[in-house]
Amino acid sequence: MISESTALDLGYLSIATAGRQLGEGSLTATSLATALFNRIAVTDTSLNSFVRLMQESAMAEAAAADERARAGRRLGPLDGIPIAVKDLYDTAGVVTAGGTAAFNERVPNEDATAVRRLRAAGSVILGKTNTHELALGGTTNNVYYGPTHNPWRLDRVPGGSSGGSGAALSGGQALGALGTDTGGSIRIPAAFCGVTGHKPTYGLVGRGGVIPLSLTLDHAGPMARTVEDCALMLTALAGPDPRDLDSAMREGEDYAAALDGGISGLRFAAIPSLVEGCTDDVRASFERSLDVLRSLGATITVCEPMAGYDDWRAATATLLVTEGAAYVESILRERPQAIAEPTRTRMSHGLDVSGTAFVRALEARKRIESRFEAALTEHSLDAYLLPTSPNTAGPIDADRYTDAAPPTVFRNTSVFDLSHQPSLSVPNGFDRDELPTGLMISGAKFADALVLRIGHAYQQATDFHTLRPTF
Amino acid sequence: MISESTALDLGYLSIATAGRQLGEGSLTATSLATALFNRIAVTDTSLNSFVRLMQESAMAEAAAADERARAGRRLGPLDGIPIAVKDLYDTAGVVTAGGTAAFNERVPNEDATAVRRLRAAGSVILGKTNTHELALGGTTNNVYYGPTHNPWRLDRVPGGSSGGSGAALSGGQALGALGTDTGGSIRIPAAFCGVTGHKPTYGLVGRGGVIPLSLTLDHAGPMARTVEDCALMLTALAGPDPRDLDSAMREGEDYAAALDGGISGLRFAAIPSLVEGCTDDVRASFERSLDVLRSLGATITVCEPMAGYDDWRAATATLLVTEGAAYVESILRERPQAIAEPTRTRMSHGLDVSGTAFVRALEARKRIESRFEAALTEHSLDAYLLPTSPNTAGPIDADRYTDAAPPTVFRNTSVFDLSHQPSLSVPNGFDRDELPTGLMISGAKFADALVLRIGHAYQQATDFHTLRPTF
Repeated sequence: MISESTALDLGYLSIATAGRQLGEGSLTATSLATALFNRIAVTDTSLNSFVRLMQESAMAEAAAADERARAGRRLGPLDGIPIAVKDLYDTAGVVTAGGTAAFNERVPNEDATAVRRLRAAGSVILGKTNTHELALGGTTNNVYYGPTHNPWRLDRVPGGSSGGSGAALSGGQALGALGTDTGGSIRIPAAFCGVTGHKPTYGLVGRGGVIPLSLTLDHAGPMARTVEDCALMLTALAGPDPRDLDSAMREGEDYAAALDGGISGLRFAAIPSLVEGCTDDVRASFERSLDVLRSLGATITVCEPMAGYDDWRAATATLLVTEGAAYVESILRERPQAIAEPTRTRMSHGLDVSGTAFVRALEARKRIESRFEAALTEHSLDAYLLPTSPNTAGPIDADRYTDAAPPTVFRNTSVFDLSHQPSLSVPNGFDRDELPTGLMISGAKFADALVLRIGHAYQQATDFHTLRPTF
Repeated sequence: MISESTALDLGYLSIATAGRQLGEGSLTATSLATALFNRIAVTDTSLNSFVRLMQESAMAEAAAADERARAGRRLGPLDGIPIAVKDLYDTAGVVTAGGTAAFNERVPNEDATAVRRLRAAGSVILGKTNTHELALGGTTNNVYYGPTHNPWRLDRVPGGSSGGSGAALSGGQALGALGTDTGGSIRIPAAFCGVTGHKPTYGLVGRGGVIPLSLTLDHAGPMARTVEDCALMLTALAGPDPRDLDSAMREGEDYAAALDGGISGLRFAAIPSLVEGCTDDVRASFERSLDVLRSLGATITVCEPMAGYDDWRAATATLLVTEGAAYVESILRERPQAIAEPTRTRMSHGLDVSGTAFVRALEARKRIESRFEAALTEHSLDAYLLPTSPNTAGPIDADRYTDAAPPTVFRNTSVFDLSHQPSLSVPNGFDRDELPTGLMISGAKFADALVLRIGHAYQQATDFHTLRPTF
């Protein structure tokens, strides 16, 4: 039995470091997975990150990884690395409920494409992480498996809907995690939990076998504690997915190999209308990070692609509830009680959206995509910079859904779901309540490598990503 | 004043030949345009291909082309070539009505992107061609400007909705024409009028400034009498269009330069379920064309990507009427009488489509796209071959719209609007009523050059495209 202090240390290893140790033989996948399951046992009564552990298959996967390491046939940097999977991703033979009672007996036959790819890279799948019901984030009172608690302050939300994954990373329960992002659900929990999350370019990571919320906006992607770790995961995850009808069907790159170019000479822009309305502390963190980036040789300017465009929030809400409702329409009509409030009411709004209103929302999304992409070229920009969220993690009890518009928390993230551009959140210091803030870096479509390189340069110059909560 | 027989000869010049003569100085753009306007004056009382002539600007464009030719500065193969434009394409300063009374005073400030590109290549824009109301083809009783008559038999329809463009080409009134294709509206009139029409890969030709019917299915493209002429036009038309939110934003190719590779060793497949139900004569023409292609060295097999998939027709209808209704929703609600029957009723169906039904239709379209593209790879196919339409041109009086499903005439064409694949119709002989039939060649997305090469090889081996109607 491994001691708790060892479990703590192993739980906060980076994927990169653990990979090196596994390669050298100074660490075994079995001891690492054992330490993490022990740590989960100790900590998850506080956090509730996990809804389902997969200990038996994980330990078998770890043993197989150790076998390969001993034989000098490691599959790559993810071989033997313990990963947590949001409960929206299908896992063969294991209930995948998407946070709803409606699916609490749903057992897929096949892994989601992303899970299959991680397993093919040798990852050890620890279990399934908590999510808002049907990934409709922004509230904590629609969590079928009970709320997840933020490791930085247990009375605070972890952000959603990939809050279980964010808390698992922040709490040292996993080295990497899968999230999904429809309005910010990778980047918000990354920011709120003080970890790193990357929403890849739309279509780069396949969503085959992921329970959909809004196929027009859904992105599958990696969460970890460092940009380098996200890059290692993205390298395994990116690529064609015939099971995802919106897959770009293009190969990914070696994102980890491209991290070290620095950012000297790059041009970034803040978007003033999305910096406005952030809390003073979030703004102060953001301004500080711009100074750091300037000191690394980047130029910071401003750009306003949102100008004259005020229906994007309505478009987001329309796309999200209509596509959400389309997926669960038979449940909403035949056994509505299977979906809890307020998810049922929010999703049911989608049944009242007309086809023509949906068409206009689709067009609005495409206009955002076109404008955000064009503005980068017009202003010779390499990326947009923003606070990930206007605020930090709110109290679990106060976080209630009130209307059909996306909650304020998603304001800055959701525009990049509409724009389909890659968007990364990195830890960016704390507010006066000692809650983490996030810096969001968003670039041109399929410039994921550049976005990650910028985030990596920032993490090389700061230590926010190395700090651990005590809980 | 040019004699009618000269006008007839000039009217049936190919773009390629006319271009060579213009280059050599044996023909002037002014004499060519004059001959065509004279021919239009004589013939359009019978055909009603044109709804609006642009004689003044056309003659000025022709004079400018002659000036360039004399100075040895021809802009390319389309310089001085007279082109007819479907009345769905915006022409700056000239009414663009889309075949509806609702728009009969609509004067755009700017040319459609395709028109701008043709003018930039030196083309002479003759005028605007007739179309079904709001391009909702398949009927002749929704033609605001009266029906167009098929030059092969004046009591027959020309096909739609680009029937004016098809008849203008068949009638020797223009050397090339612009059409649009949402369910077959380029290829059906090409087949019914015995000319050639190419629906490019979705997103290859910009639709900026084209009155939309269904943005998910609309394709802008060239019509001419030969594949070579379509290739010359496509070379000018293809490329990024920031005004079209679905533009693939990719450069085109020199499609004319790629025509001469032959088809030896290529593999084609007929789709049995779409050959079934064709008239005996259409089937006989089709079978004959397969023999010709075999004699040119191609292998012909069968493939059934439609298998198990029977909701594509409903999906087409849903997408078409909902997106159509979204564009004219304020008219349908505020002054419905401005849109005539049966277009008003058909479009109004779109107001009753729910957002969730629309979402499912979008998904159905993507499944078709995925399956049609994958089947080419799986079976090592270069193209699908089909009769363009199950039947030939019907009587004008009998052609009535009856329900919300796409008419039978569009059955074979509309699957390739759903699949977004390039699809070419070439003349393929006649039925027992001496009405033209079409051979349709459809390939992988962005394999337009290959599709055109196949069609060109067929036209080199046959003479159907050289035959002229007498009317």
